[in-house]
Amino acid sequence: MIVTLLTDFGVADYFVGAMKGAVLSVNPRAQVVDITHEIPAHDIEAAAFTLLAAYASFPEGTVHVAVVDPGVGSERRPVVVAADGHFFVGPDNGVFGYVCERAGGAGVFHATETKYFRPSVSTTFHGRDVFAPLAGALSLGVAPPALGPPITDYERLAFPAPRRLPDGVLEGSVIHVDRFGNCVTNLTPGDLGGLEGAADFSLRVGGHEIRAFRRFFAEAQGEGGGEPFVIHGSAGLLEIAVNLGSAARLLGLRRGQRVRVQGPESGARS
Amino acid sequence: MIVTLLTDFGVADYFVGAMKGAVLSVNPRAQVVDITHEIPAHDIEAAAFTLLAAYASFPEGTVHVAVVDPGVGSERRPVVVAADGHFFVGPDNGVFGYVCERAGGAGVFHATETKYFRPSVSTTFHGRDVFAPLAGALSLGVAPPALGPPITDYERLAFPAPRRLPDGVLEGSVIHVDRFGNCVTNLTPGDLGGLEGAADFSLRVGGHEIRAFRRFFAEAQGEGGGEPFVIHGSAGLLEIAVNLGSAARLLGLRRGQRVRVQGPESGARS
Amino acid sequence: MIVTLLTDFGVADYFVGAMKGAVLSVNPRAQVVDITHEIPAHDIEAAAFTLLAAYASFPEGTVHVAVVDPGVGSERRPVVVAADGHFFVGPDNGVFGYVCERAGGAGVFHATETKYFRPSVSTTFHGRDVFAPLAGALSLGVAPPALGPPITDYERLAFPAPRRLPDGVLEGSVIHVDRFGNCVTNLTPGDLGGLEGAADFSLRVGGHEIRAFRRFFAEAQGEGGGEPFVIHGSAGLLEIAVNLGSAARLLGLRRGQRVRVQGPESGARS
Repeated sequence: MIVTLLTDFGVADYFVGAMKGAVLSVNPRAQVVDITHEIPAHDIEAAAFTLLAAYASFPEGTVHVAVVDPGVGSERRPVVVAADGHFFVGPDNGVFGYVCERAGGAGVFHATETKYFRPSVSTTFHGRDVFAPLAGALSLGVAPPALGPPITDYERLAFPAPRRLPDGVLEGSVIHVDRFGNCVTNLTPGDLGGLEGAADFSLRVGGHEIRAFRRFFAEAQGEGGGEPFVIHGSAGLLEIAVNLGSAARLLGLRRGQRVRVQGPESGARS
Repeated sequence: MIVTLLTDFGVADYFVGAMKGAVLSVNPRAQVVDITHEIPAHDIEAAAFTLLAAYASFPEGTVHVAVVDPGVGSERRPVVVAADGHFFVGPDNGVFGYVCERAGGAGVFHATETKYFRPSVSTTFHGRDVFAPLAGALSLGVAPPALGPPITDYERLAFPAPRRLPDGVLEGSVIHVDRFGNCVTNLTPGDLGGLEGAADFSLRVGGHEIRAFRRFFAEAQGEGGGEPFVIHGSAGLLEIAVNLGSAARLLGLRRGQRVRVQGPESGARS
Repeated sequence: MIVTLLTDFGVADYFVGAMKGAVLSVNPRAQVVDITHEIPAHDIEAAAFTLLAAYASFPEGTVHVAVVDPGVGSERRPVVVAADGHFFVGPDNGVFGYVCERAGGAGVFHATETKYFRPSVSTTFHGRDVFAPLAGALSLGVAPPALGPPITDYERLAFPAPRRLPDGVLEGSVIHVDRFGNCVTNLTPGDLGGLEGAADFSLRVGGHEIRAFRRFFAEAQGEGGGEPFVIHGSAGLLEIAVNLGSAARLLGLRRGQRVRVQGPESGARS
């Protein structure tokens, strides 16, 4: 059985190794797989996005542990989530919010059965002492209801939805910048309804106007320092990119930046 | 069977991949798990600490390979250590020193049976050519005495013990700074004997005095730039921390810095 | 069965996690092993070198996925390579060039059987949608010819061969700088034919002359800031190194730098 790990622990300390050991101490046959440990420290939104973008590539039944946990040791609850055929374990702080919203029908359980925890639980490292052992138990086939009662008042985190402005402009934002400098927005191809292929397509971001839409990176002209364009990204979201270069650097973009697309209505009105 | 890897190789080169391949060439069914490859280059103490903090989370029988090996190719011996139900493989340079001291009863063997090495052994990469194949053999059930004779003159590395000064002050040091900026000291809760809960608790480090003790991070007041405090860390050692911030940066601390705690005796005398 | 991953994706994004999931969705029993994800972005030569240096440490039958793919989504073909008892999957852009040249007798196949791809293939992430699923299939025992027709016009990438200058000097180059600052050249011990052990050995690089040859790092005098030397490296190539220090920093070397060795002929002539 597969157990994935996603944390903000970095890989230089003993934290990740200790978590892997804690999973394997419960289930030595688990295959432990890193998603990433480079979530910016305490950045719950970034963790929620990365988990949303990665989890569905794994087979159903996979157990995903996500630990970005500034409230460790406090009253925030440990939770187990069953959603879309996958299991999720971590703190109740919104880190599973995007998955719950997108997957729908999520079952959330407050993990109160301390017999599934490490015998001695520290106040500072629940990744090792609570979440990893719970993941080990789930990977052995323990059902979520056996770990604690279902709850409905779990912490929500709404995926940042684009909105339609009165003048018909669709306004979204950059929600992630990847290592290549591609800027992932919260706009889906569905939000644009094919508009990106139109001759008068126009996306405004950070004082720039982008009028090009490309199907793939190498289709763009002007390699490296060249033309920025919009592309359908691999997370099902529109991205702002430059072929063989960094759109974030070229255009001075970062997470949170507003993105505006002229809709057909807005075009008609102006 | 589980084989963990801990090195100072970084992850950008072919070194770690080659070591994994070398383990799997001997035992294709081994589960190879990274502890970390970001030990500072040639830093044996840092490797010894990280290994001590991580190994016990793994199930008994796990084989831990640790390669921080500035003496590679020289006369320093390859060793296999059996301690606390775990196995350890690496150079005889003190990297297993903390584990041997803390676990007690360690059996140390000079790995001389070259038939368990790679057929061709380089002078610069014993991680791949000596230690990984030995780990593969151990993971297949080969017993340490089959790999070479027991030795007692192996390289010691004493865990840096705190000391009691004549005036009753307990003096320790910062032995590790983690990615969050928490400063791990060599003081245990036992060394303080509950003193950290006292109203007149005082720890001095780098010109600063810290009087607060917290049970968990979020208990602290003043998030981010706030109040530094002492906390029981997850490695069983006292740490100096700041909630949602870096104590190392806030207080200008780094490894090696002296830490002093007023004992009840010192308090009585002054 | 073992599947290795080598990419330029870094480890901070969801890319690597998604690829692992895609392998495991096809073959949940595969052991997925990272070689590295820190290949410089779009650097096909660096990927080709790292793969060449690492693959042979793995057991025969291992499937190696290499994704450094600036042409993703364009007409560049996905290929499967069978060479030296190993399998390789990735884009047809030369990333397997060094392996094909060195291993000899490589069979290269254009992977056209889309039933082995992810049902929905993006234009920007063939690592997840094409290469990882193909690797999963290979790890289940699907033979390369079942994935598509053999091709002979695949993209070549010649290993940068040293050349003999008219005056008998052997000219090579630095092809890789590792994390310790060791500079790997494209010269083999065979190219030098024992010359490195001669009293008048001389290697010139970046305005420096290096006359020392060492069998292992700790043999060198002057630790840290000391004497640079030539050593037989673990990839079967000559390296320029400094004990406990960075030759790259000390000598100001980087990839591509020319390296010249006086041959016996050149010595005789001068």
